[in-house]
Amino acid sequence: MKLSKLIGDRFRETPSDCVVESHALMLRGGYMKYVANGIYSSLPPLRRITGKIERIIREEMDAADGQEVQFPVVLPASYWQESGRYDTVGSELLRFTDRNGSPMVLGMTHEEAAVALVREYGATYSRYPFLFYQIQTKFRDEARPRAGLIRVREFTMKDAYSFHTSQEDLEACYRRCHSAYERIFARAGIPEVISVASDSGMMGGNLSHEFMLLTPAGEDSIVLCPSCGYRANMEAAECITEGPPDKKPDSAHSSLPLPALTEVSTPGVHTIDELCAFLGITAAQCCKAVVYQRNRDDSYVVLFIRGDLDVNETKLTNLLGEEIHPGEITEGSGLQAGFIGPAALCAGLQGNDGKNAKPTLLFDRTLQGRTGLVCGANRTDLHYTGLCIERDCPDAVYHDFAKAQEGGICPGCGRHTLTISRGIEVGNIFQLGTKYSKAMHMQYVDADGVSHYPLMGCYGIGIGRLAASVCEAHHDEYGPIWPITIAPWQVHLCAIRSDNAEVHAMADALYEELQRAGVEVLYDDRNVSAGVMFSDADLLGIPIRLIASPRNRKEGCVEMTLRGNKADTCKIPVDEIVLRVREKITALTAALQP
Amino acid sequence: MKLSKLIGDRFRETPSDCVVESHALMLRGGYMKYVANGIYSSLPPLRRITGKIERIIREEMDAADGQEVQFPVVLPASYWQESGRYDTVGSELLRFTDRNGSPMVLGMTHEEAAVALVREYGATYSRYPFLFYQIQTKFRDEARPRAGLIRVREFTMKDAYSFHTSQEDLEACYRRCHSAYERIFARAGIPEVISVASDSGMMGGNLSHEFMLLTPAGEDSIVLCPSCGYRANMEAAECITEGPPDKKPDSAHSSLPLPALTEVSTPGVHTIDELCAFLGITAAQCCKAVVYQRNRDDSYVVLFIRGDLDVNETKLTNLLGEEIHPGEITEGSGLQAGFIGPAALCAGLQGNDGKNAKPTLLFDRTLQGRTGLVCGANRTDLHYTGLCIERDCPDAVYHDFAKAQEGGICPGCGRHTLTISRGIEVGNIFQLGTKYSKAMHMQYVDADGVSHYPLMGCYGIGIGRLAASVCEAHHDEYGPIWPITIAPWQVHLCAIRSDNAEVHAMADALYEELQRAGVEVLYDDRNVSAGVMFSDADLLGIPIRLIASPRNRKEGCVEMTLRGNKADTCKIPVDEIVLRVREKITALTAALQP
Repeated sequence: MKLSKLIGDRFRETPSDCVVESHALMLRGGYMKYVANGIYSSLPPLRRITGKIERIIREEMDAADGQEVQFPVVLPASYWQESGRYDTVGSELLRFTDRNGSPMVLGMTHEEAAVALVREYGATYSRYPFLFYQIQTKFRDEARPRAGLIRVREFTMKDAYSFHTSQEDLEACYRRCHSAYERIFARAGIPEVISVASDSGMMGGNLSHEFMLLTPAGEDSIVLCPSCGYRANMEAAECITEGPPDKKPDSAHSSLPLPALTEVSTPGVHTIDELCAFLGITAAQCCKAVVYQRNRDDSYVVLFIRGDLDVNETKLTNLLGEEIHPGEITEGSGLQAGFIGPAALCAGLQGNDGKNAKPTLLFDRTLQGRTGLVCGANRTDLHYTGLCIERDCPDAVYHDFAKAQEGGICPGCGRHTLTISRGIEVGNIFQLGTKYSKAMHMQYVDADGVSHYPLMGCYGIGIGRLAASVCEAHHDEYGPIWPITIAPWQVHLCAIRSDNAEVHAMADALYEELQRAGVEVLYDDRNVSAGVMFSDADLLGIPIRLIASPRNRKEGCVEMTLRGNKADTCKIPVDEIVLRVREKITALTAALQP
Repeated sequence: MKLSKLIGDRFRETPSDCVVESHALMLRGGYMKYVANGIYSSLPPLRRITGKIERIIREEMDAADGQEVQFPVVLPASYWQESGRYDTVGSELLRFTDRNGSPMVLGMTHEEAAVALVREYGATYSRYPFLFYQIQTKFRDEARPRAGLIRVREFTMKDAYSFHTSQEDLEACYRRCHSAYERIFARAGIPEVISVASDSGMMGGNLSHEFMLLTPAGEDSIVLCPSCGYRANMEAAECITEGPPDKKPDSAHSSLPLPALTEVSTPGVHTIDELCAFLGITAAQCCKAVVYQRNRDDSYVVLFIRGDLDVNETKLTNLLGEEIHPGEITEGSGLQAGFIGPAALCAGLQGNDGKNAKPTLLFDRTLQGRTGLVCGANRTDLHYTGLCIERDCPDAVYHDFAKAQEGGICPGCGRHTLTISRGIEVGNIFQLGTKYSKAMHMQYVDADGVSHYPLMGCYGIGIGRLAASVCEAHHDEYGPIWPITIAPWQVHLCAIRSDNAEVHAMADALYEELQRAGVEVLYDDRNVSAGVMFSDADLLGIPIRLIASPRNRKEGCVEMTLRGNKADTCKIPVDEIVLRVREKITALTAALQP
């Protein structure tokens, strides 16, 4: 390919709306073009990268006994009605009707289609296990697409589905796919990707892992323990705190009397910080209220948690089994914004105008057994001191709702070793159990003639997001530094002073020779300055660069340098170039073999 | 791949709703599964076939200097509003709104997206010409999907777009793509595909060709002249008839007086056939009325044509510039169903209740200068004889609206040589001119600083339809006969009596050895009868079949046979198998090289 014919513009300026570097570099380098919010067209360099990623994925999924299939993008709504997700999934699922009025959806994931595909095939035990995958366009109507290819609405995904007659068999396949994923990420140039326990979210099921590239550009928070190796997505990480410093009120060993619930005037004090400053206490001595409303009917959910902790909304959603949003406190709700406390609410709601249902009260387990806390009195400018949860809120039930914290206690080893890192989720694997087979009435008959629901696993990788993640992991201020395995081309040949007939002829000959040898070459034959040529080459990020110039030509040489390591530069006699380039390609590829 | 692990069911019964053989065979062979009307999932055999077709297409498009890109499936409606097609294209274009209320469409073709991709890149002449393509899912909400993969709603398509600064340059690219298409179809096993002139339809533009596989299963009618080689789709074929047998009424050479327009009673005579029988005349002596209504406002269009000819609705739609449907004649329309004639209508409409606009009257050019015709009198049970078109309808304007007919006059050589064949359109190419660049304000500046609209071409191939077409062209009653280049596997290895340990061991070893040699093998290791094995093998249509059986094993041989030519059967010593299989693959592949 000659660079002079490559479609797409490259430019220096960082577009204003880019919050991550891969987004900016891939726009600046002519990899993609904006179409609509969260929707892009791929230009040739990106299409070549994603094509190579797809090839690696196919090889590894085939090696894991996966069979390639293809599902439609447009699916009948009836599939999702059967599974129940037509109602439980929010507006990310794009619903529409076709010309005949039939309700349809755009596939955002294909569990239902997978069950429908093999419902009859999988009717007898002897056909199990089986694993199949597709590489196909998906649409997820995200509320907030961001960060270029990291979070889009339309994307290409490899999604795989496996079917099993036993948990052991599911786990064996899960491990096989886990290994395949490690190999895929290593071959794509990011062996540093780690798998972390995750929340199964709308997929359902029992166990799931996310594959995370740790990078500040990530939008996920990952909880890691460098001591024991514990790894979990924040959404799934258990929050462990030390027990209450006081004894429980009903304990036989209790010697001190419990403090009394005492009203204190706190004019204009609305936040935990203000309260701590006003009373000279720490946030851990406060009982904080966080208010949500159910999406379904806007009914209130008030969650009480230790003042120094934050709410993990995924845990809350999972417990409630439905979607929520941050609460907006209205006049007649009976809730007093800034002064909400459990003692007053447990004693009975004042000021509720009857239009609002009584709020659901939930307690984080960090409050269990705590005494002497400060909380709101549910009246303007009033708080209580001396809150003793089990005395003042006798019916409270406790769950883990808190986010793990930096320096917090590791659920694995019990030490104060937790660190929080940012990460991009580049893949995920789920043990779905029988959720979909049960809902969609897929059964098999075992050797004894007894019917069972098969167990399912599912396994996803977003192709574009993986490309962007590799760019996040491997770039400098001038552009991406693509690993040889997914680089758009293997070699970038620059003819400096291509108006010099001898340089031009040498570069032309080299271009032809390399192509004949099966090397993928991008040839910059333009009559532009070396500066423009090199900055374009940096933006295109091709690993091996060859430079033909008047000076080199006189020496009968071409300069070879690496995009990732400019110190690795040498002059190579023209007649050795093909050999040396092939050696370098082999060495760079081998270095990425897992 | 072991057949015992291949997902998908094969069965003997032809599904009831299959009107073409490829549909039935691809369902029976476990190639695909119905999801919704015109929407299928691909099982592994079909995905392997389409994957190979995609590879051939990529190679040929790359060789034609095409650059691969990828457009979104979901496009903003604004693209289609810019081009004007948001209003002109009917309900095949699936329109919906996203969660934010933005109007979107599902891409059924990507001219608008192509212009948007390169509108800035193509701002200067030096960047021209360029050609790019994608292989991507499309959705076209067809009113009547049919014939399996021949006419679906969701499909994978290779669509390419080229941009040019001159008509010569566009034509050069058009020819290059035409050759690439011939190579693609030849390599896919159907070199017999022909290109025919076609109607540009909703794409617009000046010149277009369709690539047609002639087969009775096709839904297109192709007009061919075996004498001069004239080829056109029925929609685009000119209809030529001999001039009127009578002289024109105003001709100086006219000697006979014109017949008078005479009312005749024709009780219960509604059709041309009835009229001919009643009056003892031929259909060519009748002036037939065909009634349509505009989709936009249901206003009437009445088309008069010689009684023995049929209306080519595409020609009518093109002339009107809008969509129509067969007319439903209502009480107050002033039209008398079965008795509509031009003389009465030209004289003035009786019985129109004023709610209906006056109908548009159109005349096929076969009526021009005709005298002595029979037509309806626009009153119940009455016709006229002696209709002289230019006397009785002096304002008539004539166009070519008629369908070409078998045995009709060839527009190429003027002889009565036309034949009509059925065909499947497996590809199309269009010279679009400046239709899209003008509408979407894409301009380039030439060397003199003058702005111009670039010319465009576009080039499409439906992948699934091509697979089905190859199946139509190559099958027998037992299943498809896939060409080696797109066959799901190259070799089908059957172990007859695989419960025989020695046969089983021999077949296992052969399977491993062939795979190591890079041969794609489907290995039937099931313990089923030879009959079941062979009928499955026939349904899977793999070109080379190897049969390991107890008898062959004793002779140290394996039997090799061809799916397409069972007479070509020979016994091959086990240690020569890999060599002989590779020779056969090479020979079969070479035979398909264009």
